[in-house]
Amino acid sequence: MKLDKLQNVLTETQKAISEISVQGNPSELYAPINYIMHLGGKRLRPALVGIGGQTFGLSFEQIKPLAQAVEIFHNFTLVHDDIMDNAPLRRGQQTVHEKWNANLAILSGDVMMIKVYDFILKGNYTNLKEIIETMNTVAVEVCEGQQMDMNFENRNDVTIDEYIEMIRLKTSVLVGGALKLGAQAAKATESDQDKIYDFGESLGIAFQLMDDYLDAFGDPEKFGKKVGGDILANKKTFLSIEALKKDTSGEMKKWFASAENFEEKVDAVKNLYTDLQVDKACQELMQSYHNKALGALKGLNCSEESKQVLTGFAKWLMSRTH
Amino acid sequence: MKLDKLQNVLTETQKAISEISVQGNPSELYAPINYIMHLGGKRLRPALVGIGGQTFGLSFEQIKPLAQAVEIFHNFTLVHDDIMDNAPLRRGQQTVHEKWNANLAILSGDVMMIKVYDFILKGNYTNLKEIIETMNTVAVEVCEGQQMDMNFENRNDVTIDEYIEMIRLKTSVLVGGALKLGAQAAKATESDQDKIYDFGESLGIAFQLMDDYLDAFGDPEKFGKKVGGDILANKKTFLSIEALKKDTSGEMKKWFASAENFEEKVDAVKNLYTDLQVDKACQELMQSYHNKALGALKGLNCSEESKQVLTGFAKWLMSRTH
Repeated sequence: MKLDKLQNVLTETQKAISEISVQGNPSELYAPINYIMHLGGKRLRPALVGIGGQTFGLSFEQIKPLAQAVEIFHNFTLVHDDIMDNAPLRRGQQTVHEKWNANLAILSGDVMMIKVYDFILKGNYTNLKEIIETMNTVAVEVCEGQQMDMNFENRNDVTIDEYIEMIRLKTSVLVGGALKLGAQAAKATESDQDKIYDFGESLGIAFQLMDDYLDAFGDPEKFGKKVGGDILANKKTFLSIEALKKDTSGEMKKWFASAENFEEKVDAVKNLYTDLQVDKACQELMQSYHNKALGALKGLNCSEESKQVLTGFAKWLMSRTH
Repeated sequence: MKLDKLQNVLTETQKAISEISVQGNPSELYAPINYIMHLGGKRLRPALVGIGGQTFGLSFEQIKPLAQAVEIFHNFTLVHDDIMDNAPLRRGQQTVHEKWNANLAILSGDVMMIKVYDFILKGNYTNLKEIIETMNTVAVEVCEGQQMDMNFENRNDVTIDEYIEMIRLKTSVLVGGALKLGAQAAKATESDQDKIYDFGESLGIAFQLMDDYLDAFGDPEKFGKKVGGDILANKKTFLSIEALKKDTSGEMKKWFASAENFEEKVDAVKNLYTDLQVDKACQELMQSYHNKALGALKGLNCSEESKQVLTGFAKWLMSRTH
């Protein structure tokens, strides 16, 4: 029963996102918006808006515009981040600035950001001010996370605490915010809004740590993108920061300073990760955030069935292998 | 009396903008916001929010957050447009992407866009949904205007009608929108909101046509930026589009295709403009939009004094020589 309900909201979410169509003139400005919105993806964030709303009594239809707004916001950040990160691919396809150009990626991204608020208005939520306050807080934090991430590129002394704070802002506040927005639209109590937000925020950190782990240790057949991408890009992740701290041989530092893109590097760094047991440490921290997430659900005023949807979602998210 | 009132709102607006301070972490993200917000400028748009609000009975204090929101929005568009236009200077100072870099200009601009909605919320306006709808409509149109302007760069067949539509979107809808937002917050009738919007929209077109005119024929001592900048950049303006249409000698086409930045070019093109009487045509069109603006005020349900502030503003705006 609970799995049916989870599956239903995931299906309804996919449909809701597929229905998004943003049109206007000049058409050049709108083509990238519809392109990025229909590139696919797991649609976790809008699904969480749906789950947050349903947990406190709204139908998916009632919460739909807010779910769409959150997915538009997420994709807006992808379009602008991809310019900043100079990323050629997104979900296996050309990024907007590659397919068109950086100017169009900036401007169509800006239109998406405005459309976020348009979609929020569509829902006719009576506590509009509170909903927009939540959206704004989360949106600014996501930008702050992106800025921290960019700052990290030029630093060699990033700590695990700083890294966790960065992924909290860049990824997790929107996972928590999606649930909170749904709960807020359904007029959940402030205490319930906070609990469901905390559940999402911790789950988001666990999710990102799993992303870091899978980037190195995921099944290449299933992972979709090149395994070892973070290693080749000398990216600061839980694994690399922890390995740099633990390694006394100087091996990790040597590889991490190297710009050479050899298969040898991926294998060598992965061996260091397992030798230094940072793979294990990553999984342990991931598990501890997963547990923290589940703990936040205690005392949530909702049906047992709704709680099972939330825990089912967490389980589904953390069982992925790619 | 009426001039005192106009002067008051201009002074209060300058003060309201000087009070804007947006802080957070990482501080790198916020420095460009406070830099651009305090670079100066005429603050026309927030002043118009103030005038719109006062016309229908609000105090400046009540309308202040909305006025600040509109100026933040305007500056957000400047930051992103300057990246797209590769502009080195803004108000005689380095643009954000020049002083820092393009990535920071994108991201701090994004934060500004979110802050627009934060400032709107600060006003506690009870018709929040309608106010945000107006803001969103205007904001998207401004982006559409910027896209049209960029499209024009690669076209040699831009008509005057298309040009007017571009400046309507890029500049005028925000002039009209500022007045409408003020009126809306003051709960003016829809008919009055439309009238004051139309006044602003026509005035905005007249304002931009004057900008085009002054760029070529302004007093170099007073103009602040280099006279002839549009000519040197082969920019499509009312003057160049009309001259290209009227010129049968091929001279205008020759100069307009030239990338050579000689003083000779500015003088030659200005001579063509006067020979072809496009300077006169520009002033006539400007005057006709000015008259159209004043016509829109007929039947506006407000005090005679308020109407005089509006006509006084229009007169003040159109009497500038720089």
